[in-house]
Amino acid sequence: MGGDHGPPVTVPAGVDMLAKYPHLRLILVGEEEALLPELAQLSYDKTRLVLHHASQRVEMDESPSQALRSKKDSSMRVAINLVKEETAQACVSAGNTGALMATARFVLKTLPGIDRPAIISTFPTINPKRNVRMLDLGANVDSSAEHLVQFAVMGSVLASAIDHIENPKVYLLNIGEEDIKGNEQVKQTAQLLSQSKSINYAGYIEGDAIYHGEADVVVCDGFVGNVALKTSEGVVLFIAKLIKQAFKRNLICKLIGLMAKPVLTPFVSRVEPARYNGATFIGLQGIVIKSHGGASRPAFAHAIEEAILGVENNVPNRIRHEVEQLVKSSLPPPHSE
Amino acid sequence: MGGDHGPPVTVPAGVDMLAKYPHLRLILVGEEEALLPELAQLSYDKTRLVLHHASQRVEMDESPSQALRSKKDSSMRVAINLVKEETAQACVSAGNTGALMATARFVLKTLPGIDRPAIISTFPTINPKRNVRMLDLGANVDSSAEHLVQFAVMGSVLASAIDHIENPKVYLLNIGEEDIKGNEQVKQTAQLLSQSKSINYAGYIEGDAIYHGEADVVVCDGFVGNVALKTSEGVVLFIAKLIKQAFKRNLICKLIGLMAKPVLTPFVSRVEPARYNGATFIGLQGIVIKSHGGASRPAFAHAIEEAILGVENNVPNRIRHEVEQLVKSSLPPPHSE
Repeated sequence: MGGDHGPPVTVPAGVDMLAKYPHLRLILVGEEEALLPELAQLSYDKTRLVLHHASQRVEMDESPSQALRSKKDSSMRVAINLVKEETAQACVSAGNTGALMATARFVLKTLPGIDRPAIISTFPTINPKRNVRMLDLGANVDSSAEHLVQFAVMGSVLASAIDHIENPKVYLLNIGEEDIKGNEQVKQTAQLLSQSKSINYAGYIEGDAIYHGEADVVVCDGFVGNVALKTSEGVVLFIAKLIKQAFKRNLICKLIGLMAKPVLTPFVSRVEPARYNGATFIGLQGIVIKSHGGASRPAFAHAIEEAILGVENNVPNRIRHEVEQLVKSSLPPPHSE
Repeated sequence: MGGDHGPPVTVPAGVDMLAKYPHLRLILVGEEEALLPELAQLSYDKTRLVLHHASQRVEMDESPSQALRSKKDSSMRVAINLVKEETAQACVSAGNTGALMATARFVLKTLPGIDRPAIISTFPTINPKRNVRMLDLGANVDSSAEHLVQFAVMGSVLASAIDHIENPKVYLLNIGEEDIKGNEQVKQTAQLLSQSKSINYAGYIEGDAIYHGEADVVVCDGFVGNVALKTSEGVVLFIAKLIKQAFKRNLICKLIGLMAKPVLTPFVSRVEPARYNGATFIGLQGIVIKSHGGASRPAFAHAIEEAILGVENNVPNRIRHEVEQLVKSSLPPPHSE
């Protein structure tokens, strides 16, 4: 029900993925009177789609605590309950991020040894064959060194499980590559990660190098990661706007623009935020994927694909296993909050 | 002497600015044997250029404490000494950022009421008539609310003194626009700024909105600001590379590229980091401008222009005055470290 567009985008995107993945089964959770008219316009395999009515919805500006307290029959809450009771294997939502995270954490709980779930997503790099996973993108502020180590473990698992990278290179986001740079948490994290046997820790990385294609995983606090993500989106949209303005100036520019468009599009579209839509709430006992609120039909479909990959590659159990190894190893055990 | 290129870039850039600003007088500080051959190739008004020999140079990878201790006759240290003794009105350097900041702080000291100097620079926005000043870009990590308030005062002074904006709109960088979002320092800063009479505080801003042209000043901790700056530069270079690749694919693409270039360049060059080169070390009893180490001749010239603007508009004294007002007002006085 959530996001800027709601069912007119989420329902057709789901039906698209039903057609693409023959083993996929979908449960649409939300208000029947909003979902049925959308479904009526589409043709799909009715044996693999179930409608599950939920009478409430969480508004985009609602506070997480309010949503938790008073929206017990919201589409979001019901969908996460279905994951909890193992009726569903994953939940995908374009709704209120804070409410979704609070609900997911409350209902599903974190994995043993994980204090805080994080938000992880994919960024493109200059190397067309290599994307980078970055976390945390905004679930946590003031992350301690122990939290950042847990993020490193989870990011590393996701990169090896989903992107099939052996021994993923994990970097720590910092404001310089020298040892003396950075804040206390980052310096402590670097020390802990250097001692770890299970993580392939490769050192500090600066903001510009996220896009250089060296790193498989970049770890940072959620405040910093969210700023990096949003700033990047801002620059992409800014440049897209400048290019459009340039090709609109007069008739000759328009003609050149018409010729340039098919040349530029396949290249420049690699940085379109929509292509990387679908952030994983990682560290939970269950799979929850958050789509951008403004996602288009193909972008929301991509978020559903992230959920499918998470299920097929058994991400939560792999993290559980990796954290057990970590606790057994020389690293200090993660603190509980 | 510093930067990736040293005198072959800094000397001609200085000479360019001598020609452009008839009242400018330059003191070139560094090793005579490196500076003289560069000068020999150029024609300039010899009455307005002085060479000041300094026998050492700070290496780009030297630690700030080492530079402070053992490089007392470095070009950097001597240039800042000249500002201290009022022989020079400003110092411009492309050298080691950490060493330059440590030296500037040690020699010049901060202004009364300012605990920590900050790095402030200009970002372009979608509005071609409006740039935004952002600080801190990496001088400080773990900034307290009091430090962030001081940054807000200094940014506001710079925007009104140099960009001639009346009552500049000051925003606080955060990971959401709602009151509940953010870390403790940001929430406390918002409270302090809302109470301030001298600062036109406009609320929270997210990373993407830095480029929307609403804000005149964006305030953040140096870790966060440095990540935002570097990430933005990374995205700009990434997209520039994609565009170049697209126009190189085959002969037809090359031809279209040749036509598109003059259309795109005047627009897209607005986001080139070189155009905004020259960050001010703000909060010191003197003007110090840091150029990007890799700056080209026109980019380094731009950094010199920032210094000229700082001198002409009397920035340090205006900050001194504004901080005195702040202390007199209802705000809690800034703590000293």
